[in-house]
Amino acid sequence: MGLRDILEDVSSGELSPEEAQARLAGYATTDAGRFDAARERRRGVPEGIFAPGKTVEEITVLAGTALETTGRAIVTRIGSEDAADLESALDGNATYHERARCLVAHEPGFEPPEIGATVGIVTGGTADRLPASEAAVIAREIGASVERVDDVGVANLTRIVDQLPRLRGMDVLVVAAGREGALPTVVAGLVSTPVIGLPVSSGYGFGGDGDAALRGMLQSCTTLSVVNVDAGFVAGTQAGLIARAVADARE
Amino acid sequence: MGLRDILEDVSSGELSPEEAQARLAGYATTDAGRFDAARERRRGVPEGIFAPGKTVEEITVLAGTALETTGRAIVTRIGSEDAADLESALDGNATYHERARCLVAHEPGFEPPEIGATVGIVTGGTADRLPASEAAVIAREIGASVERVDDVGVANLTRIVDQLPRLRGMDVLVVAAGREGALPTVVAGLVSTPVIGLPVSSGYGFGGDGDAALRGMLQSCTTLSVVNVDAGFVAGTQAGLIARAVADARE
Amino acid sequence: MGLRDILEDVSSGELSPEEAQARLAGYATTDAGRFDAARERRRGVPEGIFAPGKTVEEITVLAGTALETTGRAIVTRIGSEDAADLESALDGNATYHERARCLVAHEPGFEPPEIGATVGIVTGGTADRLPASEAAVIAREIGASVERVDDVGVANLTRIVDQLPRLRGMDVLVVAAGREGALPTVVAGLVSTPVIGLPVSSGYGFGGDGDAALRGMLQSCTTLSVVNVDAGFVAGTQAGLIARAVADARE
Amino acid sequence: MGLRDILEDVSSGELSPEEAQARLAGYATTDAGRFDAARERRRGVPEGIFAPGKTVEEITVLAGTALETTGRAIVTRIGSEDAADLESALDGNATYHERARCLVAHEPGFEPPEIGATVGIVTGGTADRLPASEAAVIAREIGASVERVDDVGVANLTRIVDQLPRLRGMDVLVVAAGREGALPTVVAGLVSTPVIGLPVSSGYGFGGDGDAALRGMLQSCTTLSVVNVDAGFVAGTQAGLIARAVADARE
Amino acid sequence: MGLRDILEDVSSGELSPEEAQARLAGYATTDAGRFDAARERRRGVPEGIFAPGKTVEEITVLAGTALETTGRAIVTRIGSEDAADLESALDGNATYHERARCLVAHEPGFEPPEIGATVGIVTGGTADRLPASEAAVIAREIGASVERVDDVGVANLTRIVDQLPRLRGMDVLVVAAGREGALPTVVAGLVSTPVIGLPVSSGYGFGGDGDAALRGMLQSCTTLSVVNVDAGFVAGTQAGLIARAVADARE
Amino acid sequence: MGLRDILEDVSSGELSPEEAQARLAGYATTDAGRFDAARERRRGVPEGIFAPGKTVEEITVLAGTALETTGRAIVTRIGSEDAADLESALDGNATYHERARCLVAHEPGFEPPEIGATVGIVTGGTADRLPASEAAVIAREIGASVERVDDVGVANLTRIVDQLPRLRGMDVLVVAAGREGALPTVVAGLVSTPVIGLPVSSGYGFGGDGDAALRGMLQSCTTLSVVNVDAGFVAGTQAGLIARAVADARE
Amino acid sequence: MGLRDILEDVSSGELSPEEAQARLAGYATTDAGRFDAARERRRGVPEGIFAPGKTVEEITVLAGTALETTGRAIVTRIGSEDAADLESALDGNATYHERARCLVAHEPGFEPPEIGATVGIVTGGTADRLPASEAAVIAREIGASVERVDDVGVANLTRIVDQLPRLRGMDVLVVAAGREGALPTVVAGLVSTPVIGLPVSSGYGFGGDGDAALRGMLQSCTTLSVVNVDAGFVAGTQAGLIARAVADARE
Amino acid sequence: MGLRDILEDVSSGELSPEEAQARLAGYATTDAGRFDAARERRRGVPEGIFAPGKTVEEITVLAGTALETTGRAIVTRIGSEDAADLESALDGNATYHERARCLVAHEPGFEPPEIGATVGIVTGGTADRLPASEAAVIAREIGASVERVDDVGVANLTRIVDQLPRLRGMDVLVVAAGREGALPTVVAGLVSTPVIGLPVSSGYGFGGDGDAALRGMLQSCTTLSVVNVDAGFVAGTQAGLIARAVADARE
Repeated sequence: MGLRDILEDVSSGELSPEEAQARLAGYATTDAGRFDAARERRRGVPEGIFAPGKTVEEITVLAGTALETTGRAIVTRIGSEDAADLESALDGNATYHERARCLVAHEPGFEPPEIGATVGIVTGGTADRLPASEAAVIAREIGASVERVDDVGVANLTRIVDQLPRLRGMDVLVVAAGREGALPTVVAGLVSTPVIGLPVSSGYGFGGDGDAALRGMLQSCTTLSVVNVDAGFVAGTQAGLIARAVADARE
Repeated sequence: MGLRDILEDVSSGELSPEEAQARLAGYATTDAGRFDAARERRRGVPEGIFAPGKTVEEITVLAGTALETTGRAIVTRIGSEDAADLESALDGNATYHERARCLVAHEPGFEPPEIGATVGIVTGGTADRLPASEAAVIAREIGASVERVDDVGVANLTRIVDQLPRLRGMDVLVVAAGREGALPTVVAGLVSTPVIGLPVSSGYGFGGDGDAALRGMLQSCTTLSVVNVDAGFVAGTQAGLIARAVADARE
Repeated sequence: MGLRDILEDVSSGELSPEEAQARLAGYATTDAGRFDAARERRRGVPEGIFAPGKTVEEITVLAGTALETTGRAIVTRIGSEDAADLESALDGNATYHERARCLVAHEPGFEPPEIGATVGIVTGGTADRLPASEAAVIAREIGASVERVDDVGVANLTRIVDQLPRLRGMDVLVVAAGREGALPTVVAGLVSTPVIGLPVSSGYGFGGDGDAALRGMLQSCTTLSVVNVDAGFVAGTQAGLIARAVADARE
Repeated sequence: MGLRDILEDVSSGELSPEEAQARLAGYATTDAGRFDAARERRRGVPEGIFAPGKTVEEITVLAGTALETTGRAIVTRIGSEDAADLESALDGNATYHERARCLVAHEPGFEPPEIGATVGIVTGGTADRLPASEAAVIAREIGASVERVDDVGVANLTRIVDQLPRLRGMDVLVVAAGREGALPTVVAGLVSTPVIGLPVSSGYGFGGDGDAALRGMLQSCTTLSVVNVDAGFVAGTQAGLIARAVADARE
Repeated sequence: MGLRDILEDVSSGELSPEEAQARLAGYATTDAGRFDAARERRRGVPEGIFAPGKTVEEITVLAGTALETTGRAIVTRIGSEDAADLESALDGNATYHERARCLVAHEPGFEPPEIGATVGIVTGGTADRLPASEAAVIAREIGASVERVDDVGVANLTRIVDQLPRLRGMDVLVVAAGREGALPTVVAGLVSTPVIGLPVSSGYGFGGDGDAALRGMLQSCTTLSVVNVDAGFVAGTQAGLIARAVADARE
Repeated sequence: MGLRDILEDVSSGELSPEEAQARLAGYATTDAGRFDAARERRRGVPEGIFAPGKTVEEITVLAGTALETTGRAIVTRIGSEDAADLESALDGNATYHERARCLVAHEPGFEPPEIGATVGIVTGGTADRLPASEAAVIAREIGASVERVDDVGVANLTRIVDQLPRLRGMDVLVVAAGREGALPTVVAGLVSTPVIGLPVSSGYGFGGDGDAALRGMLQSCTTLSVVNVDAGFVAGTQAGLIARAVADARE
Repeated sequence: MGLRDILEDVSSGELSPEEAQARLAGYATTDAGRFDAARERRRGVPEGIFAPGKTVEEITVLAGTALETTGRAIVTRIGSEDAADLESALDGNATYHERARCLVAHEPGFEPPEIGATVGIVTGGTADRLPASEAAVIAREIGASVERVDDVGVANLTRIVDQLPRLRGMDVLVVAAGREGALPTVVAGLVSTPVIGLPVSSGYGFGGDGDAALRGMLQSCTTLSVVNVDAGFVAGTQAGLIARAVADARE
Repeated sequence: MGLRDILEDVSSGELSPEEAQARLAGYATTDAGRFDAARERRRGVPEGIFAPGKTVEEITVLAGTALETTGRAIVTRIGSEDAADLESALDGNATYHERARCLVAHEPGFEPPEIGATVGIVTGGTADRLPASEAAVIAREIGASVERVDDVGVANLTRIVDQLPRLRGMDVLVVAAGREGALPTVVAGLVSTPVIGLPVSSGYGFGGDGDAALRGMLQSCTTLSVVNVDAGFVAGTQAGLIARAVADARE
């Protein structure tokens, strides 16, 4: 509903100015700041709370607001100790995903969506698992089925080739890789599924910390789109948006 | 069909070794090099011929091979003079898209696909049109409907807000922006459609040539995936892959 | 007037939906794109047309639209030959500032503003004059008095010291410098006026092309704000905005 | 008063050589180094003491000298523990601003200025508060009224639009933003007030730590001047200088 | 044996599909991931386990798998405490090379290869010893004789000149250098042996941490190939491959 | 023969001081500068003359000196027109390799070496051919047999897999790749031959001009050593040195 | 004579205010800008006129002013055609140094200084000659004896060693080198003379254009100070200042 | 004495081969590595021992060797605790310079040189003192008189102007500055003494850690040579070499 439509509805009395503002604004000013409660409705993806640089108290307030207004809270990049504190503060209605360093809490009775589409999460090796798992957690919260294909780095191509039938059956792929980041290119050369490259901050020396991987994915001779280094949350969200578009079309 | 399946079919005699190789390899060695004729089948996207650094003769050979093996040829980043030469060499079966600097040729009788999904191509201003048009051409060749939303830069937000109903009706968006590259972030904050950021090499001084735009899109506080600076072909192909996944699900 | 006020006026019938949209949107869709005619009203600064990468025809269309909707057109970074062509196309109602590489055109009867405040434009040497002159042109169009203080580079400090009384009498200073860019720091250490640093793309080798100057100004041990390398238009506009704020307060 | 004037006054006997030197030099050599006591007079802004890399003892000496010579001391980037030690050493005549990590001390009887102009401090989100608060503290010490507009990040534009009437009522704006740093561009597109962009070192991966924000602000398609990453002190001082110029003009 | 040969053998019944897969794939899926057990056969070099970012438990599992499948385990960049824990876990069948920060374990009865060729490892100074020693350990495991030539930095050329007869007697040289990284260039100008440059992360300030050394080696006016900064493992492996090629030819 | 040996021979009268100097110095001062005539003896590789920035006259003098003192001249990065001029000046005793942009001249009667070892030169695509051909020319001049394996880019893996038997039969491989530079990694994962990565300056946008390729090769998860971007001469020389070491061992 | 002394002399009547200003300021405002005529007296080095970006007319005016006020003019980085035009305009009182791309003009009767000290200018190869020659021209104009030692690159160390007696006899050395820039380090390891490293913009690929050379010289394990890439003028001036300090001490 | 001379002396029997080697080589192989004992003779500057990354034991061995072979030891960048341990180990014959973080030890009876020349060490502020003090310590060990001129940053120019008579009386200046690094440029514009710029790793954000200072000094519009960021040891050594050249000329 565009601006003009809302204005016309206000003009005709179908909409009060207050409702018009709420529909356009979609946030309520709370003590914890202006919480973007409407994000999930507007974007179709849950808001994440990025833990680094915040105290457990601040995270608890933000997570509480998120639970109240949207039914769930997702906290990313939170260590196991802080997560334990947060879990107690939230009365235990929370699951901590250690490999992903994510905590997910649902209000009692919250019904997470289930969409009929699959996100594949592919990794080259052990070092890629943290951001890959973060992507998996968020994709699942959006409602996608998630399948993991781990340890198929390009140093031994047959590992990838053997997984091709599985890879080709998924609706969208997130492919995580560090070092030279060649795996998304190799995978995207073998499937017709959209592939999102997720560079990982492994490697050392020149081009280390995900730098060569990011550049390589942006230069890929096949078709990829890319997210920032270690941005598992973004990769999972984007994959979830694509999966939901596919699932909506299926209905 | 995975490696093991092919091997079992060969073992059972259902597949000859030659057919097995062809199925796996998908290329024929020609004078013009090993042309990846199977790419379209394998990836679902037509192969593009990148013109810079090639002579018109070389491009003509490659385009001819593409026409023979796949029914069409797409040449990117080709100037109008070279395009005119190429058109003559191809007996006129070609269309030159001047703003996109792309030439597209179809074999007589070639039936380009039509898929039931829409790709939106959004630009902030005039400087973004070349890569945006390149994205549009390739998305159309993949079979998507393409809608353009031009000149909605963030310096005047109402221009974007007015286009929201249109933007929300599309299946996937490519949003091109140069300078600070904020447009994809603003758009992605307003729609639930997947958004692909396409940074454009405008701007000057520090962060110019698309550098600030690329960094800004990778740092976006909303959900985006990104392609390289001016990589309209990649953006259009990725959008086309997503559109086709949606269209396939619609059937 | 905020969104809610507009909505309430629409609700009470004081404002038609069309007027509400116009007030919020402030642009009219023309053949030449969505021209941001309201920019001058909204921002108080004229819109500039950046010439590089545009044909004279395109610039002529844009300048014509600017003249019609705002009474004037400012074209930046345009060479003398293109400027001559443009002047003919605009029937001579234009002035070309060669050192600034800017063309300014006014509609007959257009009354440029005159504000009661002074912008000082300071340069270290000859190489700084192009962006400094660009800043001067735009500051004058905003209506400020402009005073030039040229050739006072830090290699001979007495040149600066002698100009202090003049520098201290101005309302805001743009200080342009290339190479190591130390001049704005030295000037800002001597006056209580706001200083805007304008790095210039002179110099060669490591840190050349304005890179050392930009970094040095951002690291200044005195108080400066900075614009991008060679961004004379931005420096002049920002100085003009400050001058106008001062002038408005004087009234 | 220029060099020549001073020299003529010395020549005519109106000024002793000692007084002439003091007027030009404006510093007294103390044990703590050559303290630039005249800075406030010369520049109109109080000198800040940057705490990192100094011991509490060193800071105490410097703050003591500042108090004696200028009536106040401002210590930036000081942690709460060191601040507590410093407060005791200064006999409690000090206020610690925790969010800004600044300590401000006034001599008994020191009358801070009050100028009739307002500095607006705008942030996109929680991560921007530290440098924004630093800017607020120094702007207040210069004598400006300071208004905060927090949590209006570009992911939800209606938050900004709702604040427009307030934003338009201020004399100068400091807009702090991390990640892609698009907020100052969006704000500067909506107001006619001078806007100073303050990039914040949030974000991770490529373009993180304020790098994308700085580049984006320097590339802004609207008019901004910019300070270095996290340079809240500089942003607040520059805003204060502009506010004072406006306030002086009002009188 | 190429793909087609395997396919024909399968077709003719000489090879079962399972054997064909094993021959091509060369990995067994274990709990610890897909271990690339065939790497040593395929590449002729033992797989290394990179310790940073892994717990001792994880390293123990990986080392155990390596021992079982290949007869040995090589763990790189492991500190002395973790190495001690790992040694106990492996029942003491391990040697810790402190200077190289490598742990090497052999299964009882494992017969490491001995090849008839010599790898020279040259360093400029003390700071180069860690990566140089890492290179030495892996070259020895590949079976090469290793000779060390230490402390021959370019500040005193006679140290190098005196070692020329020794250097000329080796089959391949790894030359490690930090700071400006000139040693490999000087050595390669004096011998006809292949030289692999190994930049070391010493130095400070601009070009420090191996950056100047890497660039200098890539710009060398003599013939060098280069590995990444501190990549002793890669340098040693590449030298080992060359030494083995020479040794094989000797037989 | 080391310094001490030469000194002892001089002491015992077996060597005159002049001969000692000549043996150590190995250059003759000519009008064209101090030509390093001994390089080929000392390093075993012919000296190349880098054409860019030199006039045809200067190149002719240098090539003449090279022919006189070593029997051959190799000029790299020379365009076809300059090469034609140079050929005339050398009386036609020269061959121009157009794809490699190299000119090679042999004195009548010069017997180029033939060594019993093979260098493989592998490319991903057309854009890699110039530096790859440069590598081939110099490897052949060193005496190696050279085999080309072109157009086996990673977008279609079967092209590489089909060439494995050939690749495994060579003594050393130079693998050239632009864009993301993944080919050397994939090849080195499949063979036990030493692989030298040669990054190529193709690609555009971020990481273009060989930058991503170089970083990717230095970060390779397999074993590679690397030369600089487009450094075909260095890659070919290093491969030639390794091939000769192997060939010498064969005798 | 310090500021206070001048002030006291003014106070006592020994100095008129005008003379005081002239003594401190040292420049005369002309049509050509504020020419820093006093630079030679203040700094002891002639001012250079940097030609790039200036028209021949502008250079002629500046050179004329330089000749009038200081007796000579030095124009750097000027091509042979512009130099010929300039020579005519100056009535032939000029010498063009083609290799240095410098033009030097002396007023009739101008007596250039002769100081009793020697500057050595050392190069690695042909590519280093332009900036080295620029350094030589300016050092000679300062009055130093200049000795050239060319073509002693590190690929053949005996060339350097043979020149040691000459190198050790000079008072200060400028050592120019491109590519990896190792020559100044090697030379500085062999002499006790002060060495100024002059990086040269040769090389290609990563670290090319003088970048690796500059970093290497800044990281040198011996004692060097450095100037910017290709900054022959600065190197020659600094060497001249040192030579003059030595020569003055000799008297 | 050149190579040829030594060879002739050996030939004529005036020199034994052993003595010839010692004269050329100048190092003795010890357990602690090849100590470059001849450096002081060859270079005229004492060798420094860089503490970071070495254990106190290793430093003790190296310092002991230095004391034995050259009469003194200089350890740089050593913390106060390690320095105390080292002092005990050296039986107290050592002085720790806390501000410079240097420890200097002299053998009983060691007579440090005294040369008749003065090195001035200038700083902008407190943050510059560590590298400036390091420069001072080494310049004194070389035998120069050292004068300090502290706290004369460019924010208050009169502080510098007042010191001009002192600055002009010195033979060579080291000028240390962080942030924008403008001080060496300003000083070098006022004196005819050679100035060595020493960039300091202060500052934060973009261009921080000495990066802007280094670039600014390399771009200086006056004559400077420069050392790396924080390289006080190099600056002091280079200044010492120049001072000694002047002092030698005085004799």
